[in-house]
Amino acid sequence: MFDVAIKNGLCFIDGKFLEASIGIEGNRIAYVGRDEISGDLEIDASDKFVLPGLFNAHTHLAMTLFRGYAEDMPLMDWLEKKIWRAERKLTPEDVYWGSMLGILEMLKTGTTAFSDLYIHMDEVAKAVGETGIRAVLCYGMADRGDEEKARRELEIGTEFVKNWNGAFNGRIKAIYGPHAPYTCTPEFLKAVKEKAKEMETFVHIHVSETKREVEKIERRYGKTPVRLLDEIGFLDDKTVIAHAIWLDDEELAILKNRGVSVAHCPVSNLKLSSGIARVTEMLRLGINVCLGTDGAASNNTYNLFEEIKLTSLLQKVKTGRADALKAREVLEMATKNGYRAYGLEGGELRQGRLADVIVIERRFNHSPVYDPIHSIVYASYGCEVSHVIVDGELIVEDGIVLTIDEDKVVDKVERLKEKFLED
Amino acid sequence: MFDVAIKNGLCFIDGKFLEASIGIEGNRIAYVGRDEISGDLEIDASDKFVLPGLFNAHTHLAMTLFRGYAEDMPLMDWLEKKIWRAERKLTPEDVYWGSMLGILEMLKTGTTAFSDLYIHMDEVAKAVGETGIRAVLCYGMADRGDEEKARRELEIGTEFVKNWNGAFNGRIKAIYGPHAPYTCTPEFLKAVKEKAKEMETFVHIHVSETKREVEKIERRYGKTPVRLLDEIGFLDDKTVIAHAIWLDDEELAILKNRGVSVAHCPVSNLKLSSGIARVTEMLRLGINVCLGTDGAASNNTYNLFEEIKLTSLLQKVKTGRADALKAREVLEMATKNGYRAYGLEGGELRQGRLADVIVIERRFNHSPVYDPIHSIVYASYGCEVSHVIVDGELIVEDGIVLTIDEDKVVDKVERLKEKFLED
Repeated sequence: MFDVAIKNGLCFIDGKFLEASIGIEGNRIAYVGRDEISGDLEIDASDKFVLPGLFNAHTHLAMTLFRGYAEDMPLMDWLEKKIWRAERKLTPEDVYWGSMLGILEMLKTGTTAFSDLYIHMDEVAKAVGETGIRAVLCYGMADRGDEEKARRELEIGTEFVKNWNGAFNGRIKAIYGPHAPYTCTPEFLKAVKEKAKEMETFVHIHVSETKREVEKIERRYGKTPVRLLDEIGFLDDKTVIAHAIWLDDEELAILKNRGVSVAHCPVSNLKLSSGIARVTEMLRLGINVCLGTDGAASNNTYNLFEEIKLTSLLQKVKTGRADALKAREVLEMATKNGYRAYGLEGGELRQGRLADVIVIERRFNHSPVYDPIHSIVYASYGCEVSHVIVDGELIVEDGIVLTIDEDKVVDKVERLKEKFLED
Repeated sequence: MFDVAIKNGLCFIDGKFLEASIGIEGNRIAYVGRDEISGDLEIDASDKFVLPGLFNAHTHLAMTLFRGYAEDMPLMDWLEKKIWRAERKLTPEDVYWGSMLGILEMLKTGTTAFSDLYIHMDEVAKAVGETGIRAVLCYGMADRGDEEKARRELEIGTEFVKNWNGAFNGRIKAIYGPHAPYTCTPEFLKAVKEKAKEMETFVHIHVSETKREVEKIERRYGKTPVRLLDEIGFLDDKTVIAHAIWLDDEELAILKNRGVSVAHCPVSNLKLSSGIARVTEMLRLGINVCLGTDGAASNNTYNLFEEIKLTSLLQKVKTGRADALKAREVLEMATKNGYRAYGLEGGELRQGRLADVIVIERRFNHSPVYDPIHSIVYASYGCEVSHVIVDGELIVEDGIVLTIDEDKVVDKVERLKEKFLED
């Protein structure tokens, strides 16, 4: 008798879909196999798909508040005239409600864990606690060459790690989030990395998202961002870099040698006309690549199924090969690679792993099902998720998020938008 | 008192979303405005979005049967070893059920009309008749240099036009569908166009989808496909070319001067690693560009919301400008440009237009709504469509397709797939 038994589904196990049942005890997967099992809570998954939960590896969650706020604008106008100006108005309460809306969308579309870099992070942590989702959180820091600011930012970041790491039965992992090499000095980045090592935790940072940013770093320091980071000892297997688009071969080799993970954000990278990352080559080199949506202002959804399909499509056109990047690889990027990037034991339907599991209904758009992996990767809309379990707890049942008052969150966010319209 | 009154929605009118009600009489829109109206059938659209129906301008509909059948393969293996071999097994009955599944998916995701080029087209026409959707249909012809075959193909194509053009209250428009310049000789293409002129109807053809195909035509005829077609008098405002990826500036000018429409299929073009069409430039030149999904084997859905979002995203990265291609332009490509391409008076919420109208629910993923156009274009999944009206008739109500037995169609297609698994 397990705490939870997910019975007779088509389960994504070791890269294939097999008929199996999943038994959960506490917050871990305790059984995967074909025996008839039972549980205090039983979910009938016959004729459904069962997957490890999706991991959204790069978000600025509360930017749901700016979903559709500024569209189809040149990048710098978008940032400087709209987004940064609006962000200055954000209160902790705004971030709380924006995060609730983001978590609602992620849970409904099968994401069980996310990695967020933003501000007012206590509020994000609070939302994670209440909703039952899993998260890797960091306060987004930037010194912009100001030593006093550097000291203060690192203090806030460290305070956050101390206060929240391991909270809610370990559902929160608190890490460090220096924004990017073009907004942080090498001295600051070095200090952050040292502090992260002292605290035995991870670092999440934006690297080489735009060509322009790489050129700026080259002009300023005479070297590219990855080389710069490597020289100051920043890169190791507790470092996750987001975007990583404008990299040369030697930089890819550095990432591989240091064990750095990459959070690939294809929708955002297109929408901001940043470019298309060299994902196929990264995977061939053995770099751990996972998937993220980035903030809602440049996506505009937190539906990871869009990133899954688009990741595959873009690599096919980028490499000129319709056989580039297999469905299995992309689905693993969206699941186990995300958990692995941040040192979490999840993202696989395997005994001993964290019990973050989703159940997906079989719908008309999946039909006919030759191999479920292609139905999931190429034909899902994201709205077919029926059940979501995080840390052993049932959080979504028949598409309803049990821990969130959906109408209240949507109403609240609709009202909050007013103040951003003033400019 | 109208036949149908869609009341108090946020309606897409002349490129903007405005509060309005829509009155329908027979198969035409009879009223658009702010008066209090009533109807024999009333749909309360308050707090919902009302749009002209989407037009899927390039499909091989019954390829739903091959959705997920062959994936992540090199293009020629995919075609020759899998798709063409499987298509040889297709019976008329298979095409009927595959078409039913395709229509089901299109209606559920807000597509009110489509343009299909395939085989056993009587069955597609039958499915269109039963389900109530609107369609432009053609029998896909290829002579491959065989004069006897050319004669036979044109006969079948003409028979189809004669039998079905105008059927079901005009819901079917029957046209000609020569496959492509690399499978049809110039003589055959010329004969087809002459016949189409005689019958006063349109021609739908694949042009310049792959680089390889353009090179083949250049080797064979000493000129590119668009120049070849222009020289034989094939190009005019009753010609719709699908894909149109590998075109030079002069070819774009030819398309503009001749009034040719282009059906852009971004998902399929990525999936088969064909390339990214020069859509932004085409629109700037004034070419009428509409959107298509292509067949389900290379997509794998008929959810036009994916093409809408991806069209915008791809142009932003292709042009290097985040302000390339506005949301309004893309939404018009998906609606009025499609109808216009095939000479149909629809795709707009305007008095006198065909009454093909969809209602979309406002959901969490749209929130907050700063401007509905961005909610629709960038944040929709496709599963938010609640009501679909085609030719004045209500066909989808609260997400249920009234004219199709969904379970029966899905069951049937699941069983049909078996025979394609034999190889």
